[in-house]
Amino acid sequence: MKKIINAVDQVENQMIEGMVKAFPQYVKKLDCGNVVVRAQKKTGKVALISGGGSGHEPAHGGFVGKGMLDAAVAGAVFTSPTPDQIYEGIKAVDDGKGVLMVVKNYTGDVLNFEMAAEMAADMDGIDVKEVVVNDDVAVQDSLYTTGRRGVAGTVFVHKIAGALAERGASLDEVQAVAQKVIDNVRTMGMAIKPCTVPAAGEPGFELADNEMEIGIGIHGEPGVEKKPLETADEIVDTLLEKILADIDYAGSEVAVMINGCGSTPLMELFIVNNHVADVLAEKGIKVYKTMVGEYMTSLEMEGFSITLLRLDDQMKELLDDEADTPALTVTK
Amino acid sequence: MKKIINAVDQVENQMIEGMVKAFPQYVKKLDCGNVVVRAQKKTGKVALISGGGSGHEPAHGGFVGKGMLDAAVAGAVFTSPTPDQIYEGIKAVDDGKGVLMVVKNYTGDVLNFEMAAEMAADMDGIDVKEVVVNDDVAVQDSLYTTGRRGVAGTVFVHKIAGALAERGASLDEVQAVAQKVIDNVRTMGMAIKPCTVPAAGEPGFELADNEMEIGIGIHGEPGVEKKPLETADEIVDTLLEKILADIDYAGSEVAVMINGCGSTPLMELFIVNNHVADVLAEKGIKVYKTMVGEYMTSLEMEGFSITLLRLDDQMKELLDDEADTPALTVTK
Repeated sequence: MKKIINAVDQVENQMIEGMVKAFPQYVKKLDCGNVVVRAQKKTGKVALISGGGSGHEPAHGGFVGKGMLDAAVAGAVFTSPTPDQIYEGIKAVDDGKGVLMVVKNYTGDVLNFEMAAEMAADMDGIDVKEVVVNDDVAVQDSLYTTGRRGVAGTVFVHKIAGALAERGASLDEVQAVAQKVIDNVRTMGMAIKPCTVPAAGEPGFELADNEMEIGIGIHGEPGVEKKPLETADEIVDTLLEKILADIDYAGSEVAVMINGCGSTPLMELFIVNNHVADVLAEKGIKVYKTMVGEYMTSLEMEGFSITLLRLDDQMKELLDDEADTPALTVTK
Repeated sequence: MKKIINAVDQVENQMIEGMVKAFPQYVKKLDCGNVVVRAQKKTGKVALISGGGSGHEPAHGGFVGKGMLDAAVAGAVFTSPTPDQIYEGIKAVDDGKGVLMVVKNYTGDVLNFEMAAEMAADMDGIDVKEVVVNDDVAVQDSLYTTGRRGVAGTVFVHKIAGALAERGASLDEVQAVAQKVIDNVRTMGMAIKPCTVPAAGEPGFELADNEMEIGIGIHGEPGVEKKPLETADEIVDTLLEKILADIDYAGSEVAVMINGCGSTPLMELFIVNNHVADVLAEKGIKVYKTMVGEYMTSLEMEGFSITLLRLDDQMKELLDDEADTPALTVTK
């Protein structure tokens, strides 16, 4: 295992500390553990909280700030945060308007977030609601989930629901728009190189020199198939076919995210987008906005995912609202 | 060679096309070759142009937009753009106020940019000036340079000189502030894994399983030494020692950039920043702003560089000015 770290049992702590020291204008860490909240608590609004295992940076701490999240809770690498951690996050950000939890669909995450919500409701009378993101069309059930997995599309939930919360909408309204994003967002990914969880010391899966995994999960869970590496355009065709079969995007406007898995050069992500844009244009699907970069990674896994979000006028407006966070800034 | 591409001889073209299709609100491509300019030409100001070999994305095309560059010229991977390309870029962005070229110090780049400037002056009467960035303290001369190499510190030149140009300053003033950044910025990097130029098909250098290269260049040029991999904190100490020996930062305010080389997980960059911040605090060097991410990469090389820019009030203000580009957005 070749990594730029100090000690396997310190990677999460030192990562969070390093993030907070880099961005004190955006985030601070709670004393109770690896929970980051906005440096200046934004009051008078519904609060958004998300989180999950570490190793997906910039998700989710990188999206804490104006127009997106109020808190992010980080578990150990690829491991759900504990209910106690999440509970502390909920308490820290609630301002009497309620809290929306944005949870990626993994059994452990859903269980622990829901337990924390019960604690906050029972002990503190906080109104907590939840949405569960399940945008990955690769597999119906997986190693860690019942139903589809939650992956990069989660970032669109943060952006759009975060914008509506920032505008002062009610908890029900913010939950509704978050669910609308979930209903309209689909993702599929692939990898050509695995990643190594520090505590494990060995790669989570193996790929031969000329092999790729189609439909990989963000923890290296198996996907649809291992097959010989193809060209970028052929891979895009395969992923888009599955995504486009799941929702009828014809005639719609979409937001596109080409997400790198952690060690994919931006050059290759742009080559991917070149063909994605061409295929969508051929199919009469209008691209409203494209994001290309690293949003939901898997340590140093090499690969990418394509996310398509079918937009309506409300989502377009909220996508364009100002945001200012360590990992995503949008100006008007 | 395992890459997500279509054809070795198409990587630069398809990368640029994919970038322009992703960000039509920011950039468009000239018909003459791989030159990107702002989607809407900004008139009445000094124009900034930069460029170099491809493979350093998001540099430089990702920094074309409000408050930074007006044009970026992309050569083949790790190869200087031609004088003709650069000349077309200069002509496209000049608006009678003159053009500043921001050139990284590599012999080929400097030669070709200067030849293009002569063409623009002789044939079109355009006032072109130049700054040469040489922030890499690792080695005095290198495979491709006389004098120090230009690396990630270049992005601070784009940001600060770009902001002054956007404010309407004269060519002399913009050149002067760009030179002030260069005089005050120092960088040093390291790598734990090499990268492969597509047309070469083999890694540019070799590192054993537990070996790292200290002082690596952004094209994989040799640095100071190969040695066994150390902890993140030990590596940071080594790089900072060399940077801090070159300029007296004591008592100063600095901007910090922790730059990933292309396939370094953000988690590791934050772990690096955790110690950088601690060391600077101990030494009484005040951090004004920190950037952590990928700004000047080397394809899929794994490693990082640390850049320190010693700031004065003018540079602080310009660093904070609004910018809106594909790879860097700053809000007020």
